[in-house]
Amino acid sequence: MKTAAIIGGGVIGGGWAARFLLNGWDVQVFDPDPQAERKIGEVMENARRSLPGLTDVALPAEGTMRFCDTIAEAVAGVDWVQESVPERIEIKHATFAEIQAACRADAVIGSSTSGFKPSELQVGAMRPSQIMVAHPFNPVYLLPLIELVTTNGDAALIETAKTTLESLGMHPLHLKKEIDAHVADRFLEAVWREALWLVKDGIATTEEIDDAIRYGFGIRWAQMGLFETYRVAGGEAGMKHFMAQFGPCLKSPWTKLMDVPEFTEELVDLIAGQSDAQSGMHSIRELERIRDNNLVTMIRGLKAQNWGAGALLNRQEAEMRKGTVQGAVAADLEAAALVETAHRTVPLDWTDYNGHMTESRYLQAFADATDRFMTIIGCDAEYIKSGGSYFTAETHIRHIDEVHAGALITIRTRVVMGEGKKMHLFHEMFEGERLLATGEHFLLHVSLETRKPTPPAPHIEAALVRFAQGHATLPAPDGLGRAIGAPR
Amino acid sequence: MKTAAIIGGGVIGGGWAARFLLNGWDVQVFDPDPQAERKIGEVMENARRSLPGLTDVALPAEGTMRFCDTIAEAVAGVDWVQESVPERIEIKHATFAEIQAACRADAVIGSSTSGFKPSELQVGAMRPSQIMVAHPFNPVYLLPLIELVTTNGDAALIETAKTTLESLGMHPLHLKKEIDAHVADRFLEAVWREALWLVKDGIATTEEIDDAIRYGFGIRWAQMGLFETYRVAGGEAGMKHFMAQFGPCLKSPWTKLMDVPEFTEELVDLIAGQSDAQSGMHSIRELERIRDNNLVTMIRGLKAQNWGAGALLNRQEAEMRKGTVQGAVAADLEAAALVETAHRTVPLDWTDYNGHMTESRYLQAFADATDRFMTIIGCDAEYIKSGGSYFTAETHIRHIDEVHAGALITIRTRVVMGEGKKMHLFHEMFEGERLLATGEHFLLHVSLETRKPTPPAPHIEAALVRFAQGHATLPAPDGLGRAIGAPR
Repeated sequence: MKTAAIIGGGVIGGGWAARFLLNGWDVQVFDPDPQAERKIGEVMENARRSLPGLTDVALPAEGTMRFCDTIAEAVAGVDWVQESVPERIEIKHATFAEIQAACRADAVIGSSTSGFKPSELQVGAMRPSQIMVAHPFNPVYLLPLIELVTTNGDAALIETAKTTLESLGMHPLHLKKEIDAHVADRFLEAVWREALWLVKDGIATTEEIDDAIRYGFGIRWAQMGLFETYRVAGGEAGMKHFMAQFGPCLKSPWTKLMDVPEFTEELVDLIAGQSDAQSGMHSIRELERIRDNNLVTMIRGLKAQNWGAGALLNRQEAEMRKGTVQGAVAADLEAAALVETAHRTVPLDWTDYNGHMTESRYLQAFADATDRFMTIIGCDAEYIKSGGSYFTAETHIRHIDEVHAGALITIRTRVVMGEGKKMHLFHEMFEGERLLATGEHFLLHVSLETRKPTPPAPHIEAALVRFAQGHATLPAPDGLGRAIGAPR
Repeated sequence: MKTAAIIGGGVIGGGWAARFLLNGWDVQVFDPDPQAERKIGEVMENARRSLPGLTDVALPAEGTMRFCDTIAEAVAGVDWVQESVPERIEIKHATFAEIQAACRADAVIGSSTSGFKPSELQVGAMRPSQIMVAHPFNPVYLLPLIELVTTNGDAALIETAKTTLESLGMHPLHLKKEIDAHVADRFLEAVWREALWLVKDGIATTEEIDDAIRYGFGIRWAQMGLFETYRVAGGEAGMKHFMAQFGPCLKSPWTKLMDVPEFTEELVDLIAGQSDAQSGMHSIRELERIRDNNLVTMIRGLKAQNWGAGALLNRQEAEMRKGTVQGAVAADLEAAALVETAHRTVPLDWTDYNGHMTESRYLQAFADATDRFMTIIGCDAEYIKSGGSYFTAETHIRHIDEVHAGALITIRTRVVMGEGKKMHLFHEMFEGERLLATGEHFLLHVSLETRKPTPPAPHIEAALVRFAQGHATLPAPDGLGRAIGAPR
């Protein structure tokens, strides 16, 4: 069992504590703030709900956290000391002196500083080479980036730092040279400065600026960053072509501040060469498709959260449903005809690397169709808010044929039985006339308060019974009521 | 049926064509480039595979595309003209003259310009108020942001432009004032300029810069942008507190260029007030959780794509499995004991707004458990690459009890039958000793080339038979072989 010392709590120190604890380390905290325990507790609560589920295997059992009265007590014998005290150099120096007087000589001492260079932190230190910058990003328990800056560092200790960070699920970005504010915060500051001008000059509000970011390049940068994105934009002609085309724009007076490195052939070659090393294993066509897969996956993820670019899609969809069968209610529909409960395209994020729809997405499509059917019979968002809904008790899926991303699929739904609390549905999924799968579902109406079965509202039962009677006049479909392993 | 004219093809014009066509518009293209048809065809191919599945209802039937020999022919009678010609003002002016000589006076004329202001585009125009900036972001068929800039515009036409863009699934960000490069490209340029310095000075390579973006603030910005992110970082004390804390940093010489607006009380109040209007309906605690839900969803989406921050997780997971039962193979395991095929935490993106695990994620957990069992018996990634795998033919799920995000779940798997091409599995999902669900699955071994059933490799069949014989000695579980609607 390894132990980390967290010197300085707050949002950043607390985030580090969470990374260590949830990855099985013990943690000893020193923070003179009387509110430290409460503040770190709040960060831990957020971290416990979000970090452990990131991976598809369980993390080790959580370590134990102990609050200490002195730095000496917190750092004694630990493997890693993480300093996250205020950004004032004299406070940093005093803190390192106390740490080094009591910690092991082979412990990593990482600083969360966003501004200072390691050489500045090391001034006057007992063992300068032990101190390195390990700069995280909020929320520290979720974002993997660590800027690792190690001027005059000890090679073995740097290696330990890297493998430790990786074991915590983090990505140590080891800078070649130290520089004020490292790398990422220089970008943040450039954007922040430009944003202040835009607000001050009345061009855009804070909300409009955030929208300009999150509906556009923010989604691109979440997966490819700046250079790889531009490499794709440059097309098959590559990075040199992109720079030839867009380099000159940099001379336009677009921003308040204009000092730009001279666009020498040497600089162009340097960037083009680095870009080849980074992305040259993929053709531009491949990169475009990787990018699109990522964008679709993230935007649809945000759609499920009804946030950002995903909330836009939900609004668009609500408009699209108006006046179509996808927006119909029971009274609009014939009782003796199957109900169309889905008409949609198989999205990229529903498919495996071969482009075939993944097993669990069949159930997602059927579950969406069930939701749509519930809406049709009056069990809609408003009714659910009032405390009633249907829960699925049992599901039976038969996979008949394969389907690819991009296919237009339709689901038609039969009410096998509907009375009182019970609803028994049989969905058939088609691409054109080709049957892809069937989904048979037994649901119970429940009280969302007690989570126990209760009868639905009368208008819902009436709509359900009407379809059940109408559908009883239709021939029984193949596969209904089948058990796995039963003879066909 | 509405019609749009696309003046200038390429990646941007092609992206516009795709937006219109896939949303049911007809499109008429003018581009003198003899390669235009091929280039737009390539964009259309990418757009067709990614855009239609973004929504959960089908888009209208695709419109028809026609290539025209003149601008006059392309714009005659259309509802929208989109100009995407090269960024030279004299070319833009000549193009608008030809467009306005032939188009309807009530058509929207949008320019894709990233740099020019509408007042510059309108110089010398026949009907200046008809010309507006509608600046999109690549890939135009996926990213929703449009910067709409309308100096001296016609109010009714602007309204038409907005509703049209929304109907195409886009977000018109209507700027209050015109400014060089609008909003988003000013940020892109600030970051690009800073990045050039970092590469030139040997601080970081293009790949390292991209990693600094996509493993850190890029993921944040994909969902909340700059100000809302900082509002959360400021904590309950709010935006004013954040600015009081971080405002002074802006005076440090962190970037090459340092002109910063003066931090007057007026500017602080302006920003704090706008931030309240934007995000004040959520407490900081709510925003933190919304942010974390979004981050988990996007990072896990990237994990499924094995890219960026998600690829890091997959590498971490592979390390975590080493030397544990999650990394075991058949020979390590007792034949007469159920096989542990999952031990994981229910992630945030698997749950509904109430925090309960969503129906289809039960099947995802069971399908992952099946994959894990396949790996255990030797049907691993390498074997699958050689051309054989198991496909699920039938699934039966019983939902016994509910489970929340953050719960640690375990799946234990029994081989009900395994011989020749057939594999019949029964998974039980537990939280501790509480049974949550069972998943019964019938699979067939197939050739991935013919997609027809074939026998598996002998070592796989042997491992399967060994478990089948061992598990036959265990008592039969409740619910095995059940059909929906059958008496219990």
